[in-house]
Amino acid sequence: MSEKVIKSKNVDASILVVGSVAYDNIITPLNTGERILGGSASYASIAASYYAGVNMVGVVGHDFDEEFINRFNRRSINLDGLQKDLSGPTFMWTGKYHENFHNRETIDIKLNVFENFRPHLPNSYKSADYVMLGNISPDLQLHVMDQLSGNPFVVADTIDLWIEIKRNELFELIKRINLFVINDSEAEIITGESNIINAGNKLISMGPECTIIKKGLHGAYLFHAEGIFALPAYPVIDLQDPTGAGDSFAGALLGYLSAINDTSFTSIKNAMLYATVTASLTVEAFSCDRLESAGIEIIKSRHAELKNIISL
Amino acid sequence: MSEKVIKSKNVDASILVVGSVAYDNIITPLNTGERILGGSASYASIAASYYAGVNMVGVVGHDFDEEFINRFNRRSINLDGLQKDLSGPTFMWTGKYHENFHNRETIDIKLNVFENFRPHLPNSYKSADYVMLGNISPDLQLHVMDQLSGNPFVVADTIDLWIEIKRNELFELIKRINLFVINDSEAEIITGESNIINAGNKLISMGPECTIIKKGLHGAYLFHAEGIFALPAYPVIDLQDPTGAGDSFAGALLGYLSAINDTSFTSIKNAMLYATVTASLTVEAFSCDRLESAGIEIIKSRHAELKNIISL
Repeated sequence: MSEKVIKSKNVDASILVVGSVAYDNIITPLNTGERILGGSASYASIAASYYAGVNMVGVVGHDFDEEFINRFNRRSINLDGLQKDLSGPTFMWTGKYHENFHNRETIDIKLNVFENFRPHLPNSYKSADYVMLGNISPDLQLHVMDQLSGNPFVVADTIDLWIEIKRNELFELIKRINLFVINDSEAEIITGESNIINAGNKLISMGPECTIIKKGLHGAYLFHAEGIFALPAYPVIDLQDPTGAGDSFAGALLGYLSAINDTSFTSIKNAMLYATVTASLTVEAFSCDRLESAGIEIIKSRHAELKNIISL
Repeated sequence: MSEKVIKSKNVDASILVVGSVAYDNIITPLNTGERILGGSASYASIAASYYAGVNMVGVVGHDFDEEFINRFNRRSINLDGLQKDLSGPTFMWTGKYHENFHNRETIDIKLNVFENFRPHLPNSYKSADYVMLGNISPDLQLHVMDQLSGNPFVVADTIDLWIEIKRNELFELIKRINLFVINDSEAEIITGESNIINAGNKLISMGPECTIIKKGLHGAYLFHAEGIFALPAYPVIDLQDPTGAGDSFAGALLGYLSAINDTSFTSIKNAMLYATVTASLTVEAFSCDRLESAGIEIIKSRHAELKNIISL
């Protein structure tokens, strides 16, 4: 099929997003952000909300800022699946970026209410056709899959922690999903292959229909039964905070696929362009601030620009 | 203009290549090569010889292997400008690759006859329309330009050494050339910009019509008055020795431009694809071995493959 350009959100389409909702404390070489809105579900949902409706599943604690709820509401994100656990504070992550953003170090993690989180899908979510399993334990990602009816298109993300401590569950998950989205260092840890082509081919032999390996500012590769696609990154000049770029990428990707209701090789390639430019907004400010305020017109203009940059 | 696909070498076209001809000693994490054919002019000339005739300018010493001359002859490279200096041995470079090829260390350099090398163009070379100034001192690159008549399209490469010890001469050179081809770390040293977009824009403000910044296995960016073009690398699986990849890239690029006799933005973009796949052959063996033996059919097939990989 030919490319479908997004003109505006498809309000008849929707995706399910499961992940973390967090307070982040971020230290970059340039600046510091304290108790800012973070978490894989936050970034993925706001990114996806440019393309389709979003049903969010996650948990927050007794201290979660009502203004953050308003932010989700303003993006028309359905929060029926967002649990409020009054027994403790919200999950908190503290991270620091070093050396021109090349390395990230986790300074502190306070799981808080996330420790006992069991994602529970409201009945209205269970028949979702497009599902994004953001970065949480593979146990919980599998638990979400067990609640799904029908035959949804499922995207999952993970991080190196789960590859180390939940390897079997992660491998079980990979078998059951349609699209695995990870970064290059994680792909190497999972497959033992430092060459991205070998790593990508090995990953799709492990179960998922296709895999996207992200290389940060060096772009991303798609590995699919029909071929390989390599996409340079959108050229960000004003990098402020890379946190959430991967979640935004995956959220926008699935939002686009849901909006056009097609998951062909060509559609996934086109989705990667939208995912890349959407994630480019995330990294230009702390938290979801720029992602949220940018608006669809900037996404459309960056999409056209990226298309130009990669065109012969 | 639309893309011109290369079917075979254009024997009516030719380029001038100036650079080093060397014995290399190479240590990689996998293997070792001793007294193998190296040097920027060797790689660039053999790469370019797939597309157009090549007139080479360089110097070798009394110990230069006659079989290496035969290798150039077999690629129909014109050696009228290759000086033989019997006063000493050939330039020798010893380098070592560390950590999965990420870092290169120069173990030893013996300039030998290269120390007193002054590139002298035979009269028949002076009217060249396409000129590649491979990595040698900017003094010598300027000395070559002073001998040129007409209005040739000039490509130049450099390395960090010259940026440090011949900065003024290098800046003078950059003003006079058409296309500057360097890698990302060199671009950062010259411009002080770690962001590739800022670095590229700054470089074209310094004089050259356009600049290509190479990122190794992460591809290359073209900065041109008409826009930016980003190209992923050809996905090499069997990396054996990265030496000469940049020289091969530049040589093939100029060879292609000469073969189609066009230097428009579109043509330079298309040339980058041929340059990338030609360089992919170089790195699959020590020296020019694979580059030389591969043949045009493999180049054409990899070109088609790369085009597929970057196509929506």
